[in-house]
Amino acid sequence: MENIKNVEIGELNEIGQNFENGKVFLKEALELTSCEISINTVPKGFKVPFNHKHRQNEEIYIILKGEGVITIDGSKFPAREGSCIKIAPKSLRAIENVGDDKLQFICIQAKEGSLEYFGLSDAELG
Amino acid sequence: MENIKNVEIGELNEIGQNFENGKVFLKEALELTSCEISINTVPKGFKVPFNHKHRQNEEIYIILKGEGVITIDGSKFPAREGSCIKIAPKSLRAIENVGDDKLQFICIQAKEGSLEYFGLSDAELG
Repeated sequence: MENIKNVEIGELNEIGQNFENGKVFLKEALELTSCEISINTVPKGFKVPFNHKHRQNEEIYIILKGEGVITIDGSKFPAREGSCIKIAPKSLRAIENVGDDKLQFICIQAKEGSLEYFGLSDAELG
Repeated sequence: MENIKNVEIGELNEIGQNFENGKVFLKEALELTSCEISINTVPKGFKVPFNHKHRQNEEIYIILKGEGVITIDGSKFPAREGSCIKIAPKSLRAIENVGDDKLQFICIQAKEGSLEYFGLSDAELG
């Protein structure tokens, strides 16, 4: 396991052209051990064709660009630049692009309840 | 603990005007239990004035916009749109904006080794 791993995925608006299904996954590429991250750019009209939930993992969506909707347990939440949404494992979710342009978002999944320290309680000057 | 939490932080390029130190932290706002996330927009000339490391948490930087450099254990890595960098807890790091415009990035910290399942092994259709 390397201490430092980096990848260059290029312009975020071109992910849909450069990666399958408009998604780049980072866990394997960066040898992550704490979370999985996908960076997504999906076209006008895109809609995940099913709801899904998780066994263990909390999921966080951060919307970078575009106009979408995330449906969670039947409720609709806006997915536009600056929308940040936490979803507990057992909630059912699906995201769709309802705008006229691409929808760009980042999705992070990590084990619910796993964070012990954060911020100044985990950081040390060096 | 709510199953769903959302916040709207607005235009990412204006974080520097709307939030202290150009940072929005999501853990408290979203009641996250798996990771801490910051969304950052820092001005030209910005440089973290110290190196830091972590006790437990792996850290991932995703660069959205601008031109920066992350120095990790003395090595310099590019921080430009699409750069994704994983840093193990004990490595010393600092980011700086070396471009002529704002630098936008997301930083995620989660406990090293905590992810047990991911992708299809954690997801269930519902």
